[in-house]
Amino acid sequence: MAAVNDGHAVAYGDDPTTDDVRELIKAEFGANAEMFIVFNGTGANVIALQSALRPWENVICSQMAHINVDESGAPERLTGSKLVAVPTPDGKLTPAMIRAAYTGAGDQHHTQPKVVSITQSTELGTVYTVEEVRAIVDASHTMGMKVHMDGARISNAAVSLGARFRDFTTEAGVDVLSFGGTKNGLMGAEAVVFLNPELASQALWIRKSSMQLASKHRYVAAQLKALLTNDLWRRNASHANEMAQRLAAGLREVSNLRITQTVQANGVFVEMPRPILKGLQAAFPFYLWNPATGEARLMCSWDTNAQEVDAFVSLARDLTNA
Amino acid sequence: MAAVNDGHAVAYGDDPTTDDVRELIKAEFGANAEMFIVFNGTGANVIALQSALRPWENVICSQMAHINVDESGAPERLTGSKLVAVPTPDGKLTPAMIRAAYTGAGDQHHTQPKVVSITQSTELGTVYTVEEVRAIVDASHTMGMKVHMDGARISNAAVSLGARFRDFTTEAGVDVLSFGGTKNGLMGAEAVVFLNPELASQALWIRKSSMQLASKHRYVAAQLKALLTNDLWRRNASHANEMAQRLAAGLREVSNLRITQTVQANGVFVEMPRPILKGLQAAFPFYLWNPATGEARLMCSWDTNAQEVDAFVSLARDLTNA
Amino acid sequence: MAAVNDGHAVAYGDDPTTDDVRELIKAEFGANAEMFIVFNGTGANVIALQSALRPWENVICSQMAHINVDESGAPERLTGSKLVAVPTPDGKLTPAMIRAAYTGAGDQHHTQPKVVSITQSTELGTVYTVEEVRAIVDASHTMGMKVHMDGARISNAAVSLGARFRDFTTEAGVDVLSFGGTKNGLMGAEAVVFLNPELASQALWIRKSSMQLASKHRYVAAQLKALLTNDLWRRNASHANEMAQRLAAGLREVSNLRITQTVQANGVFVEMPRPILKGLQAAFPFYLWNPATGEARLMCSWDTNAQEVDAFVSLARDLTNA
Amino acid sequence: MAAVNDGHAVAYGDDPTTDDVRELIKAEFGANAEMFIVFNGTGANVIALQSALRPWENVICSQMAHINVDESGAPERLTGSKLVAVPTPDGKLTPAMIRAAYTGAGDQHHTQPKVVSITQSTELGTVYTVEEVRAIVDASHTMGMKVHMDGARISNAAVSLGARFRDFTTEAGVDVLSFGGTKNGLMGAEAVVFLNPELASQALWIRKSSMQLASKHRYVAAQLKALLTNDLWRRNASHANEMAQRLAAGLREVSNLRITQTVQANGVFVEMPRPILKGLQAAFPFYLWNPATGEARLMCSWDTNAQEVDAFVSLARDLTNA
Repeated sequence: MAAVNDGHAVAYGDDPTTDDVRELIKAEFGANAEMFIVFNGTGANVIALQSALRPWENVICSQMAHINVDESGAPERLTGSKLVAVPTPDGKLTPAMIRAAYTGAGDQHHTQPKVVSITQSTELGTVYTVEEVRAIVDASHTMGMKVHMDGARISNAAVSLGARFRDFTTEAGVDVLSFGGTKNGLMGAEAVVFLNPELASQALWIRKSSMQLASKHRYVAAQLKALLTNDLWRRNASHANEMAQRLAAGLREVSNLRITQTVQANGVFVEMPRPILKGLQAAFPFYLWNPATGEARLMCSWDTNAQEVDAFVSLARDLTNA
Repeated sequence: MAAVNDGHAVAYGDDPTTDDVRELIKAEFGANAEMFIVFNGTGANVIALQSALRPWENVICSQMAHINVDESGAPERLTGSKLVAVPTPDGKLTPAMIRAAYTGAGDQHHTQPKVVSITQSTELGTVYTVEEVRAIVDASHTMGMKVHMDGARISNAAVSLGARFRDFTTEAGVDVLSFGGTKNGLMGAEAVVFLNPELASQALWIRKSSMQLASKHRYVAAQLKALLTNDLWRRNASHANEMAQRLAAGLREVSNLRITQTVQANGVFVEMPRPILKGLQAAFPFYLWNPATGEARLMCSWDTNAQEVDAFVSLARDLTNA
Repeated sequence: MAAVNDGHAVAYGDDPTTDDVRELIKAEFGANAEMFIVFNGTGANVIALQSALRPWENVICSQMAHINVDESGAPERLTGSKLVAVPTPDGKLTPAMIRAAYTGAGDQHHTQPKVVSITQSTELGTVYTVEEVRAIVDASHTMGMKVHMDGARISNAAVSLGARFRDFTTEAGVDVLSFGGTKNGLMGAEAVVFLNPELASQALWIRKSSMQLASKHRYVAAQLKALLTNDLWRRNASHANEMAQRLAAGLREVSNLRITQTVQANGVFVEMPRPILKGLQAAFPFYLWNPATGEARLMCSWDTNAQEVDAFVSLARDLTNA
Repeated sequence: MAAVNDGHAVAYGDDPTTDDVRELIKAEFGANAEMFIVFNGTGANVIALQSALRPWENVICSQMAHINVDESGAPERLTGSKLVAVPTPDGKLTPAMIRAAYTGAGDQHHTQPKVVSITQSTELGTVYTVEEVRAIVDASHTMGMKVHMDGARISNAAVSLGARFRDFTTEAGVDVLSFGGTKNGLMGAEAVVFLNPELASQALWIRKSSMQLASKHRYVAAQLKALLTNDLWRRNASHANEMAQRLAAGLREVSNLRITQTVQANGVFVEMPRPILKGLQAAFPFYLWNPATGEARLMCSWDTNAQEVDAFVSLARDLTNA
């Protein structure tokens, strides 16, 4: 941050730091990628959706998608559109689910299917393979729909797949991406990346009228520049994923606990008896995913360390044996 | 219509015909009922919802509710809110379903539960009992939510229950009602009826800014006046319900057909083999409710006659025996 | 109305009466004209605007345009856009005014100029000539904007100009028209007519999600069919315009009154001293246009008769001489 | 920033840094002040407006208000409301202007006047006195309207007036304030401050559904904490205002230039001949306010230094004498 703090710079995105980020994004996603920096993940998702949608069109997504659950209705407010939320046991949509949700096309009484939104890695810590993304894109494009990827945790997915970003985005045919930085160590910086440049023509105005344009743009850009330089994104995400594996491995050894989702990125979902849950929550802050079943969501990040993980596992074991 | 066509009248709802309708509505729903005439059912529903909702609040409704399926996203567009759609095998919400859908209250990341919307009679031709409505209202009010009733077919429900309108609306605690006229024989006239007058304070502006204010208001009002005079609403709905019973009774005698919902109002839902379906659709226009199962929706109205019903049953029998 | 009341008809606009209106509209406006029937003038205007606008784009219109003053914010609500309202002494925009209001194009901080909306005949009873419309269209198209005409009183303008509808719409290059029926004698029926068919592709969904689709569509269509058959529109409007001329001629003879706008259609604007105003309003209902100056708006219609006009003039004279 | 970077903190505004800012704001604005941190000035303004407005209500503001000109329609998009923009020669509204713009109250055809928005210091570098603010508030409250102050440059106004923030906000009766930090030296941090706590009840959801909630909230909060500690806000703004006075004093000595607005805060508006304008713009970046008249907007900030100012004046003099 200090590096961009000296001297004056043109506001609103015409500064050299933003130019650098544009080049770094093109290096990752291909020369046609067009990027617009925003403040937060909800902003990135809602701007991406607006670029492809009119109010009478709809978005097919998982019932547990961030856009459906955690954005306080911002997608519906800003797009005016309906989200068609599909139950997904592991957080992942499939072409079959999408085809089943594709209804009413051409009928004036119904919202028109227009966008499929998938999250990579998903809200349940699972990861779409390259082939799965491609199959979703192919099915969606055949039905005349665009594909949005919520990549708030895209770095964790890339590390998990051992793939380049472009392998499961640009080259798989994804139209527009929310590229996440904040969950991978930044103070607060995300980007909308248009892989299908046709969708980008109105992005300047969508961003501004959605109140996501920073005046001192270079301070947000500098964060993304750091993330995309010298593979910082990969180191942060690798560490987080490794900590999740370590955590899962430790918890698997504790009787009475049940890991409910395949651990493929930086999240571990685990069901546990109420007393263990209470004991752990007293010592560590985490989110209770399903109060009915006692399923906890344990997220590891770039700054989770092995001692913390081991202490968590150790306390879980002690509480089980108590 | 001719009766209101002579002489000049003040526009936009200050005419004597509209005054008459106001009094007729008060006679049915109680002295506190406040009524606003609109053009169509979608208009009535969306104005009713707007009166109780801000954009970050949500509406709990059946997955097959007209507001969720058949209004091309108008509720989301005009309210900016989310519909939380709950699967309902017989089209009816229950207090338990509502409690399960009531999530995230007080959490800034989530839309806030604010309105429960039920349809009476339902989209599946079933009818809530007085007690069922009251239980839903009590549960909803306890959780701080208002209750909207989509009464596009409210006359059919009243006849089915042998109840007065007010028994299952005003006296059951419903806050706001879409009162239907068009499906019960009118050319095109509906009303929003506020039973909870607190919700009515902005209705004039909600209606106008939702483009549902008629300038020559008396022509719409005259239709509702006719419907509410000399129990025309009851005669029309009674006839429609009787025709549905006659149709159901006839179809029950035909092997290979299966009536899928209790017939309580003017609709009959029936599953049939593909060849019978095709043969019937060639002779009679009706809506295929579920293409996957061959379930048809057969709606009877004020002008359905017994010969038509019998001819339908007879053809179904012939096709079955062919 | 009775003619369409017999027998059953397919709902939502697939009926033969609506087909007839489509053909009548094509006969007036050309073979490419695409028509969608709606309930009221606000509905027609707002659907027309939505067909050409995204939320970050703006509409240049007269400060006294119906869309700016009399629609309770429905245009802003439904389009999300800004109206750029320009002062117009006689209700008419000019190319110079439009060029002055065209600002900020290409600048992300500003709404983007996209639609010019003119009213024909205007809110002040004046009429654009064919050449004036063409000059506005040429200027607007050159700047990349579409042109909407609010034709709530288009028949009065056509009669005033002695022109065919198409002369100052289709052939002048207007993109989309609100075709008015209600102010020219109908109970309640208007249409959106796309002269530029590119704008029509989403009209079915814009109409439905704007709550302007009638289920028993033939009852609305029948009114427009009557208006467009045997030149009923022309007879009604001619009569209204003649009554306005008679009224203006009479009032010009009364000292102390001042006619403030050229009388070209069916409206007469006249400034009068307070006591005369009060005396006239006690006997005749009319709208006080400008309370500060005592300017009244006197509108004549298809059913204004000469005796009424003469009685008005006579009372004005008596009050002046009193 | 480094101070808040160590250790973990609860996300979304429950961190100790945000608590500190809350206390600092209460110390400035009174114990009832409720504060919500946001990303940028447009976000602050639009959230403030939403807290007091429904879509069919309007906002009276200056024609040159930031909300009217520079937010790409975000206020209309998010509120659905109309801005009633009033010409203001010096950027300041008066009670008389507000009364003239207050029209249509109680009339269903018109948007309802609900909020008056003033900018302090204004877009023209002028400052409302304490008495002027109080007179606007009194007039507005009498008419049933709330008052919003866009305080993007509130520190410059406070310094100019030699007043405490609360003198011309809380104690003058202002209902809600956009408190600016970015234009006074921060990287990017603003706050909505509710002085009338009744308006704050929905602010958490308005902010979230407007996409203005930061997850790592402490990084935004830390900036505001710094600004409000040890009078940093005052030192920054005093310096900026002094530089504006120095600049104005210098330019007044140059013939051919005309300072067009009273210099009361950190902006200097100056008309100059085209060749001088071009010569200055080649050397210094500034905004051409009015291309027609050659009026430039020169803004001084916390990091403008006297040498820069003197060099600007010197170049202006040289160009004039050339």
